[in-house]
Amino acid sequence: MLKVPEHQVAGRQAIDGKLGPLVDNSGHFYKPLQDDDERGTGELTFYHSFSSNTRIPHHIRRFFPVFYGTQLLKASDGSGLRPHLVLQDITSDHLNPSILDIKIGSRTWYLEASNDYIQNCFHRDKTTTTVSLGFRRCGLQIYNESGFWKPERKLVRSFTADDVRSVLRMFVSSNVGPEPDFCFADSVYGGCDGILERLMELKTWFEDQTMYHFCSCSVLLLFDKESFLKGKTPFAEVKLIDFAHVVDGNGVIDHNFLGGLCSFIKFVSQVLADSKGSTMED
Amino acid sequence: MLKVPEHQVAGRQAIDGKLGPLVDNSGHFYKPLQDDDERGTGELTFYHSFSSNTRIPHHIRRFFPVFYGTQLLKASDGSGLRPHLVLQDITSDHLNPSILDIKIGSRTWYLEASNDYIQNCFHRDKTTTTVSLGFRRCGLQIYNESGFWKPERKLVRSFTADDVRSVLRMFVSSNVGPEPDFCFADSVYGGCDGILERLMELKTWFEDQTMYHFCSCSVLLLFDKESFLKGKTPFAEVKLIDFAHVVDGNGVIDHNFLGGLCSFIKFVSQVLADSKGSTMED
Repeated sequence: MLKVPEHQVAGRQAIDGKLGPLVDNSGHFYKPLQDDDERGTGELTFYHSFSSNTRIPHHIRRFFPVFYGTQLLKASDGSGLRPHLVLQDITSDHLNPSILDIKIGSRTWYLEASNDYIQNCFHRDKTTTTVSLGFRRCGLQIYNESGFWKPERKLVRSFTADDVRSVLRMFVSSNVGPEPDFCFADSVYGGCDGILERLMELKTWFEDQTMYHFCSCSVLLLFDKESFLKGKTPFAEVKLIDFAHVVDGNGVIDHNFLGGLCSFIKFVSQVLADSKGSTMED
Repeated sequence: MLKVPEHQVAGRQAIDGKLGPLVDNSGHFYKPLQDDDERGTGELTFYHSFSSNTRIPHHIRRFFPVFYGTQLLKASDGSGLRPHLVLQDITSDHLNPSILDIKIGSRTWYLEASNDYIQNCFHRDKTTTTVSLGFRRCGLQIYNESGFWKPERKLVRSFTADDVRSVLRMFVSSNVGPEPDFCFADSVYGGCDGILERLMELKTWFEDQTMYHFCSCSVLLLFDKESFLKGKTPFAEVKLIDFAHVVDGNGVIDHNFLGGLCSFIKFVSQVLADSKGSTMED
């Protein structure tokens, strides 16, 4: 039984007769290969290359959804059979996951792209936080006492640096409103299993790897308060998603992704530090 | 007695009746304030802010030329008196310094700039190594057995990744030609006083500081073989120069500079590793 993913926060959605990803009940995520541009095959090419690449350390492979190949499936737009990437459904083990989807990099275009594509990205990068912060939010949902908060995409796109900080605070609080309680900050961001430590692991790899440049790729943060309160692990995860625009690194590190990642790490560190200050004041 | 700097490798030069910097015999570098754009005052504003900023650690201040204020001087283009920045002449203690001037960042424009400026930079960034490598060479001179090698600026601008590696090898070799001897690699790039260690210090600061964004700023590497052979220190230095386009960091790290710096560090590390491989084979 295929259905529309419950916890998708960004990207094309399989609703209103549109083409989008589907999930099943056994932890698979089916992403349709697009034929209107090279994105679908670009992502497939990346998964093939990455899954057979013996130079990827085990602890880095964990950041990527498991790739199970491709499968012909009835597309969600009713257009008939279409090849889909079969991937791990990252959210399947979680009941009410809070999710942040952050597109990393101060530039989403790349030299190999068409001029039109470059110009479109260039414009959008300048008018979102991509250029100023080195990343932009693509989507989010936060679970709290009153259910899911899932702002409209338009609102998410107009986020400022202060909005980013405010969302990072809400992400680890049990309450909503202007005074977050930072209830889960230490466990989720801090500690040796926390999100900050995972991001630092990624950073170390990006300082060294010269195989791939991850243009327009997202870091996805997931935190399941339910799992945490029941003592289940992992209750927080960091994943990389969306590889339609990964290009050859040609022996150079991905300085665009790395710079943006470092900027995002600084935001998370600051919120963690703020939470400690706030706890000490209590 | 003011004169044209002997070891200037990039930027406007005070020759053929043009406006450019001058030096004296007591270690001062006089940089004319331009009135055709905001660059001159931008750089003065930065030096004022930076020199009075108490949050700059001592070990970071060393990377910047000392600022002695401004002075009215006869301009090199014969246009009469003009205010000049008075700075430390970085090369004055060295007889035959090899110098690399590398403009750091995968983007030289910034959101506050005019549309024309952004478009010009955008074009040049794409057609040099700025976008692909995260930095571009602006100028260089390398001293070896046959004197100074100082390629034309046009040639320097068309440098590829392989050319960058080749120049980094020549920089620490005593010979010229296709098989560099890496004679000084260990002392200049390696060790606790080496260039790599200095670049890592800078990197650590850039991962944290959110005060300034250094657009179009250069890292200058200097190595004086003469000083090295005579046992004089420092024989190698890392400096930051050109602050006409420094803008307010607004609480965000300079992810553009940081990413480019990390890319450059990777190039230097690889050349140092190659040199060790080459020595082991000997």
